[in-house]
Amino acid sequence: MSGLSCEHIMGVEDMSAEDIRLILDTADSFKEVNERRIKKLPTLRGRTIVNLFLEPSTRTRTSFEIAAKRLSADAVNMTGSASATVKGESLRDTAKTLSAMACDLIVVRHKYAGAPQYLSECMEAHVVNGGDGRHQHPTQALLDLYTIRQELGKIEGLTVGIVGDIANSRVAGSLIPALKMMGARPIVIGPPTLMPARPDVLGAEVASSLDDVLSELDVAYMLRIQMERTAGMPFPSLREYANLYGMNSARLAGAKPEMVVMHPGPMNRGVEISSAVADSDRAIVLDQVNAGVAVRMATMYLLLGGDEHVAAA
Amino acid sequence: MSGLSCEHIMGVEDMSAEDIRLILDTADSFKEVNERRIKKLPTLRGRTIVNLFLEPSTRTRTSFEIAAKRLSADAVNMTGSASATVKGESLRDTAKTLSAMACDLIVVRHKYAGAPQYLSECMEAHVVNGGDGRHQHPTQALLDLYTIRQELGKIEGLTVGIVGDIANSRVAGSLIPALKMMGARPIVIGPPTLMPARPDVLGAEVASSLDDVLSELDVAYMLRIQMERTAGMPFPSLREYANLYGMNSARLAGAKPEMVVMHPGPMNRGVEISSAVADSDRAIVLDQVNAGVAVRMATMYLLLGGDEHVAAA
Amino acid sequence: MSGLSCEHIMGVEDMSAEDIRLILDTADSFKEVNERRIKKLPTLRGRTIVNLFLEPSTRTRTSFEIAAKRLSADAVNMTGSASATVKGESLRDTAKTLSAMACDLIVVRHKYAGAPQYLSECMEAHVVNGGDGRHQHPTQALLDLYTIRQELGKIEGLTVGIVGDIANSRVAGSLIPALKMMGARPIVIGPPTLMPARPDVLGAEVASSLDDVLSELDVAYMLRIQMERTAGMPFPSLREYANLYGMNSARLAGAKPEMVVMHPGPMNRGVEISSAVADSDRAIVLDQVNAGVAVRMATMYLLLGGDEHVAAA
Repeated sequence: MSGLSCEHIMGVEDMSAEDIRLILDTADSFKEVNERRIKKLPTLRGRTIVNLFLEPSTRTRTSFEIAAKRLSADAVNMTGSASATVKGESLRDTAKTLSAMACDLIVVRHKYAGAPQYLSECMEAHVVNGGDGRHQHPTQALLDLYTIRQELGKIEGLTVGIVGDIANSRVAGSLIPALKMMGARPIVIGPPTLMPARPDVLGAEVASSLDDVLSELDVAYMLRIQMERTAGMPFPSLREYANLYGMNSARLAGAKPEMVVMHPGPMNRGVEISSAVADSDRAIVLDQVNAGVAVRMATMYLLLGGDEHVAAA
Repeated sequence: MSGLSCEHIMGVEDMSAEDIRLILDTADSFKEVNERRIKKLPTLRGRTIVNLFLEPSTRTRTSFEIAAKRLSADAVNMTGSASATVKGESLRDTAKTLSAMACDLIVVRHKYAGAPQYLSECMEAHVVNGGDGRHQHPTQALLDLYTIRQELGKIEGLTVGIVGDIANSRVAGSLIPALKMMGARPIVIGPPTLMPARPDVLGAEVASSLDDVLSELDVAYMLRIQMERTAGMPFPSLREYANLYGMNSARLAGAKPEMVVMHPGPMNRGVEISSAVADSDRAIVLDQVNAGVAVRMATMYLLLGGDEHVAAA
Repeated sequence: MSGLSCEHIMGVEDMSAEDIRLILDTADSFKEVNERRIKKLPTLRGRTIVNLFLEPSTRTRTSFEIAAKRLSADAVNMTGSASATVKGESLRDTAKTLSAMACDLIVVRHKYAGAPQYLSECMEAHVVNGGDGRHQHPTQALLDLYTIRQELGKIEGLTVGIVGDIANSRVAGSLIPALKMMGARPIVIGPPTLMPARPDVLGAEVASSLDDVLSELDVAYMLRIQMERTAGMPFPSLREYANLYGMNSARLAGAKPEMVVMHPGPMNRGVEISSAVADSDRAIVLDQVNAGVAVRMATMYLLLGGDEHVAAA
């Protein structure tokens, strides 16, 4: 009934192109709901959605929580520090416990890659991967696709430069296969020290100079430099990084006039993106945030098989 | 109207056997609700329920929060670290403050025994003890009784072995009197170092060897070894504890074939219960978790005198 | 439509006396709702209200959360430690992010004066200042006015002594202009070391002895000594402070018989207010707490322009 070929949202590779298109199309209806004065649908009334965030996050957790509440689900937050995991409970027992409480859907963020997958194998509830280690962040990729489609009218055939810390980014880990599945051409761009040992297996083209490929890009996707971990950052200085890989007004002037700039947030203004660019109408960062709520509503709705009348407020 | 003889759920001794039976019977209806697709009743709409958890907990807090939301109450979480108590406010003033905000029911977990009792004396709202120090955890005992009755068809006449850290367990503190009230025969089992100084006053039989009494048990209730406090644990090693007092497949083979294994969670697999037993169908740990939501819905419903049509979704 | 002349609740000076009267009158309806068994109105159904508390607080956050839920809004909590601000996000980007998620109203508590103002300039949502540094706490002043009017029948013409740490108190920062706007006569009272350098600019009369002015007061408003910061407190001892500036039974005996004692909470019993006074019927501290929920419901309702039928449950 749900129309998705998958029971969970684990990683982009587990979804078909049809799944992705269905989610994006469904998100269209929900985006319209979010523009109303009364942003509320009865669709998931009586369903229990748990946000199990074992790594700190506000932005993503808030986006999922708002999505759940606008669909009238009962949303419950469980965060890391308070969790039974500190009492030594295994992730598997946490999963089985939530299952026994008759939770319908679990959104999980975890520092270990594969944790959401393991969780989904232990329980009956649907699981949405809200970001696992350096592995995947599939709803981010979905909202990115949604935003690209909305802003540029299509995804197929576009050239998307993904710039920055490719090796450690779960955003890149989901976005690259998602773009390929939808017929776009991803190029990963960054200093060799921020590339994985075998970038060729990513399935994207690889460039070490942003300026070399800039004129080809329809989208410049700037990854966040994880400032809280800069101690061991493998580049000489933030200033040098900004000079070589940051998006700024001078660089933007050398790009296609219709090229848009994206960022998963939170932005380090002055590092991977200059303040002038971030505030310009070339940046569609806030459109991404806006799409995030709609895309998450769509995944929850499709996984839980809400009744058909989506638009009935 | 509520049918309960008590205004609060403080400790098992404050309840009558009729109160307990009424809660278990009411929980039956709610258990059925929790099996529905739409797990929501309008019963406590417009009532405010505060989870005041001044000790860390996820499992119990989540269970209460889900119970409140499925009854359509407004559920508000207040946790220790953020609380006004860090600004030096007395528990009494916190109670009066919540009362002044017209809260209807407070679930309180506190490290000091007696705190919920004190709270209930300071305010008009109903209070449910969500665990106080080493004293009582009455909703745990109620869900344990519910699960025993559901799995074994009755409580009266059963022999229940409670195994482990009897001296420090609020679970045991509530379960022993609850079992006696319902006509069961509790036996506390553990090394003398984990027994209170005067185990005779517990009102349970006392055994220091699990193997000696194993064949008599209808239920083996394995208490959690508080691993986070093992530094001062009064036994030589976890391995020895597991050998002497843990439930494992070998030991299970020596028990009655219909004996069930219970645990309040979170489990330390390999210590008080082996993984094989925990995952076997002799363990009814997840039934306990499942019952927890229903029993907590029942206590909230009965204390707040929800309207009569429980089953009207 | 809302009837307020302001889009945000920033500081008392940004409101007109008519705004204040409208809020107090609207709060009257909501106070009645809070006395019902079913404390719930459909007024703000489908509106999203975020509690962005970047400084610890329970009392105020809980009051706002309960207010939002009783109006059927979707209430989401974002607290400091979990926030994207720890990842280096600017307050401005946090604001724009919440705006992009289509949040309708943000309640913000922040350690820096002016942060709510800045937030309101960055986003379309309505902003309510939930306390900023040592600057303003406008909903506290509104609930104080409400309580005075309720208990004494009027505000105009009353003499209100505000006692304590005037220099550092955002409560005083909002209450003094609010009282003046409503025609009351504020007197600030405290040791010179707890006065601002230029107390004359406050617009209140200044007294260094409580006993000197006590007999003139209709209201004694006792500010909280911030015990968590006593290390650097500029007075010899808490005992001396209590003797000179605390409200106790002996002092109360020298006041007008109808004088009421107020406190923003949480109280330090034995310091700025004795336990006997706090528990006497001269103290209207719990009335303040009770009014807080109603006043916050009123501000949310008026800012968001809820539909007209406030009283339709």
